[in-house]
This record gives sequence, C-alpha cells and structure tokens, in this order.
Amino acid sequence: MMYIGVDLGGTGIKAGVVNQQGEILSKGSTPTMIERPYQAIIADIAALCGRVTAEAGLTMDDIAGIGVGVPGICDPKTGVIPFCTNLGWHQIPFVEEMHKHIDKPVRVDNDATVAGLAESVAGVSAGSQASVFITLGTGVGGGIIINGRPYSGAHGVGSEIGHMILKMDGEMCTCGNQGCFERYASATAIIREARRAVEKHSESAIMEACGGDPEKINAKIVIDCAKANDPTALTVFDGYVRGLAHGIVSIINVLDPEVIVLGGGVSAAGEYLLDAVRAEVEKHIFYKTMPHAHIELAQLGPDAGIIGAAMLCK
Amino acid sequence: MMYIGVDLGGTGIKAGVVNQQGEILSKGSTPTMIERPYQAIIADIAALCGRVTAEAGLTMDDIAGIGVGVPGICDPKTGVIPFCTNLGWHQIPFVEEMHKHIDKPVRVDNDATVAGLAESVAGVSAGSQASVFITLGTGVGGGIIINGRPYSGAHGVGSEIGHMILKMDGEMCTCGNQGCFERYASATAIIREARRAVEKHSESAIMEACGGDPEKINAKIVIDCAKANDPTALTVFDGYVRGLAHGIVSIINVLDPEVIVLGGGVSAAGEYLLDAVRAEVEKHIFYKTMPHAHIELAQLGPDAGIIGAAMLCK
Repeated sequence: MMYIGVDLGGTGIKAGVVNQQGEILSKGSTPTMIERPYQAIIADIAALCGRVTAEAGLTMDDIAGIGVGVPGICDPKTGVIPFCTNLGWHQIPFVEEMHKHIDKPVRVDNDATVAGLAESVAGVSAGSQASVFITLGTGVGGGIIINGRPYSGAHGVGSEIGHMILKMDGEMCTCGNQGCFERYASATAIIREARRAVEKHSESAIMEACGGDPEKINAKIVIDCAKANDPTALTVFDGYVRGLAHGIVSIINVLDPEVIVLGGGVSAAGEYLLDAVRAEVEKHIFYKTMPHAHIELAQLGPDAGIIGAAMLCK
Repeated sequence: MMYIGVDLGGTGIKAGVVNQQGEILSKGSTPTMIERPYQAIIADIAALCGRVTAEAGLTMDDIAGIGVGVPGICDPKTGVIPFCTNLGWHQIPFVEEMHKHIDKPVRVDNDATVAGLAESVAGVSAGSQASVFITLGTGVGGGIIINGRPYSGAHGVGSEIGHMILKMDGEMCTCGNQGCFERYASATAIIREARRAVEKHSESAIMEACGGDPEKINAKIVIDCAKANDPTALTVFDGYVRGLAHGIVSIINVLDPEVIVLGGGVSAAGEYLLDAVRAEVEKHIFYKTMPHAHIELAQLGPDAGIIGAAMLCK
C-alpha cells in the first residue's frame, strides 16, 4: 500500500506519494494563497493528491491514506485544526472538508511532529524507541515520537517544546510567558543577542557582514563569524549553545529519548553546532555514568514534511 | 490473577497482595536495615511476599507477578538498579537476585512512577490516557503514565521531572546543575525561602512556630502560617506556588497530560495549595482557549506504593 503525504505551508503546499519505507515515488506542489477561504485551499490539496497519484502511475485505490503536516496545532483525534497562525485558521474542520473530495482516511498533525516522524522512519532516528525532534527556526518546534508513533498529548497540544520554561522570569516570549526555551534556542535568539552584542562591539565582524545594519543580522551571519573566530560572535554562539544544551538536558531528564534530532534553519550550521551542543550537554547531564540520548542532525531536509505526513497513515 | 506489590524504602519494606482492580487483599512489612548486603534485603523481600500471599489465603500459584517500587533509578528492561542513593545501591541485579527465591515475573520501577501508576489505576487519574504524577517532598519526583503504562524512557532514567531546568543559572541543585524544578517546588525550597525571609522579618509568625530557631522550620509550619495570613509566610508560599506552577506549565506544554497529580509531603496542604496552583497555572498556560490538564491531589496515600508496584505486572 502507498500513502500520500502533504506538507501544508504558508506559501506553498507540497505533496507526494510515499511507500512503506518512507521513499517518495512522485511529488508536486501548488501555491497556498492563504487569503482564500479554507475550502478553496483544501480543494487544491485534494486536487494535488490526485495529480501526484496519477504521476506515480497509481489510482486512488492504491492509496491507503493521506497525512497532512500543518504549521500549527492540530487535534489528531477529531481532525480539527484549532489554531494555525501562519494560515490564519481557527477551528477548521480539516478532515471533514477533505472528505468532501476524497474518500480516504485523512490524518493531521503538527509539522514539527511530522518531521520528527519522518526522521524516525527514514532518517537519523530510524528504528529508535523514543526520539525528540527539535526545529531550531524562527521559533522552536518539537516532535515527540514514542514506539514509532507521534505523541501529541491528551488534547493535541503536547510537544510544544519551544514553550517549556527554561528561565523563569527571563526573556519575554511571544506566548505571554517569560523565559521559554525558544527565547534561547531559536534563530531569533541568536539575532537578538548579536544585536545586543554589536551595540558594545561595533568592531565585530558581524557588523561588516551585515553591511553595518544590525537589522540585517541573521543567524547564519553570526554563526559564520563565530566559525571565523570573531570574539563577539563566539560569545553569542556560546551563549546560544548553552541555552540549547540546557533545554536538551531538561528533555533528557523528563523523556529520556534514545535520539534527539536537531532540524530547522540553525541546524544548517552542521557539525560545528553539533559538536558544541554535545560537549555542553555532557557538562550538565544528570546521570553522568548512564547512557543518554544521542544528539544528531536531521537528515531528510525539505522532503521530511512529505515523508512524515505520509507516515501518519502507516 | 493476583499480583504482589512491594514498596521498598530506606527504613521499611511494605508488601501486599493486590487484585486486578488495584484493591489490597493483605499486607505486611519488615525493616529494611540497609547496612546489610543487598542479598539479605532481597531474601527478606521474597520472604515477605510469601507471608502476604499466605495471609490472603493464597499460594504462589495464584500470583501472576511481583512488582517493586524502588527509591532510585531502575532499568525496567534489564531489572538492574543502577543507582539507589537511599539504599547505597549501585548496579544491583535486583530481578536476577529475586529469581533465586521466587520463580515469578518480577518488575521494578522508580517509586514516583509506581505511585503515579497506582493513581492511574485506582486513584484520582484512573482511566486517563496520559497522566503525570509529581511528588513534592524533600526533592521532586515524577511519574509519567501513558496509556496505562509507566513511561521510563529509553535508558530507564526518564520522568526525572525534578531535574527539568526551570531557571537556568538559578539556585544550585544537588545534581550539580542550577535552577532545577525541585529547587523551587520541593519542601526544601519552602524551607530555604522561609529561612531567608525570617532573616529580614523576625516578626513573622514562622519564628514563633519554630520556637525561634530557623533550623526547625519545615514546610508545614510555613504553610500553616500562610493559611493564618502571616505576610512573610504568604510571600514564601506565593513564591513556591509560582515556581511549582511554572514547572507544571512546562510539563503541560511538553506532555499535555490529561491529569497532573500532586503527591508527597507538601500536597498535605490540600485544597489550599491546589486552589493556588490551579489559579497560577491558568495565568501562564499557552493555549488559553484549549482544554488542558486537570490538576488534582493524590488520593491513595501510603498504600499507593504497594498498589502501583503490583500494577507493574498487570
């Protein structure tokens, strides 16, 4: 049996036919155009599912189900999407609407959860009993996979690892709390700290790299300057790694996964980031003589969304 | 079929025969005497299992298995106890040693996990899909129950909720890190903050209640003074509730359980504590319009250890 995986984003919708092993047989895309009513967007998703199926030389009879990764929160039990800020969606009966077009099982889950599921089927955490996927992007998302299945909690709002409180009374978060993990482990955290740092250190290579405009600082600039041993960038990078490592230690102490997978934009820093994070985690781990989670980089890249979504139906 | 549950403590060992519904049919106890070799202690546990079985009018043929709650970390997969500070145990082959005396399946798990399992079978979280038990004692222990089974992670060191980092760079913890949840949510935290507070506020009712000796302050004294509206005790209590609530919010954001159960010494403060914690959690919850975990007090009291241990074998 085959599955269709749909990666629903604010700009584009990607879909593909995926086999049992998590390999993509065909794929396609269509623009989201979020200003439209949700019914029109879902009709386009359904049409795209038909196209990728035909392109794989299959019919809908070969498809066991359709999985969809959504950049917001989902209730996997009801198929309703209570909140999706990127799409401006609120209480959208997603599965019900999909069933007006295609008579197949439809599963929805959060996009970070879906990416974590993809890695646990066909990526770096394949075969692990429990893994936690952390997306280091504008914010920090999380996916918890236990025994091969996504863990989304009792009300579908679990695995919001970015809003685990890491520093009570710390930096203000967009969620209204202070000190959330994502205030220390996102690309946004790197940019914030770099802007603060260059105020005092205008000689930093960061300033040259951003053309003298701190508004143009991004995480890549800071990490590249750190790799080149710019002292200001190194201080910012070390502070970032420290926050990320403390959050990972919390995750290990609560969930003790077999693998922790780092994905999202900041993870493009590769081994440079990974080595630093592993070393910092070692310093703070609780049971130093016991084995603990391997920390790894995500492997699947942009296709993770399609693969993981498809695996929701497996 | 019946089960035997064993509650292994630093002072005493309690055991009982428990039925499928989590009801105790017979129970007994014996002193631990931790200065002895582990083989002698385990021999006593086995003998106690025999006694409670006979007392229930049963034979070992009626017993499906023996579960044991241990005040340390366990590896439920291997039956080895890597660390148990209270007993001075290190790498004890517990299940193997038990099998020298009794030829029955033996399961071990952490005592907080076992207490959480008891509540999820026969207590306040009965029937819930996912629950988290938090013991508020000298430290803070945790038990995560998912789909009726204890979740102990990939290496048996999960659910160490007390060592989730709540305030990076905060109070020093016994584990070597700073700012662990238990530094803010244990009885020890209440005592520490009360001692600090009475240095500045010797007029506080806490001083009278402890006979003028801050070394004699305990959590009950502080909470009783708070209930009587002593301003200093109220400040300490409010700070405690704030730390506990922030940790609960982290747990909700990561695990989204159906029920969070508060047990351990501090939970004896009852509804006074519960009302305050619920109100503080409401302030900091992420998805304010979505349902979230109920916060409840543990119901089973001192028998939770026997009941939960027995349920490890169910």
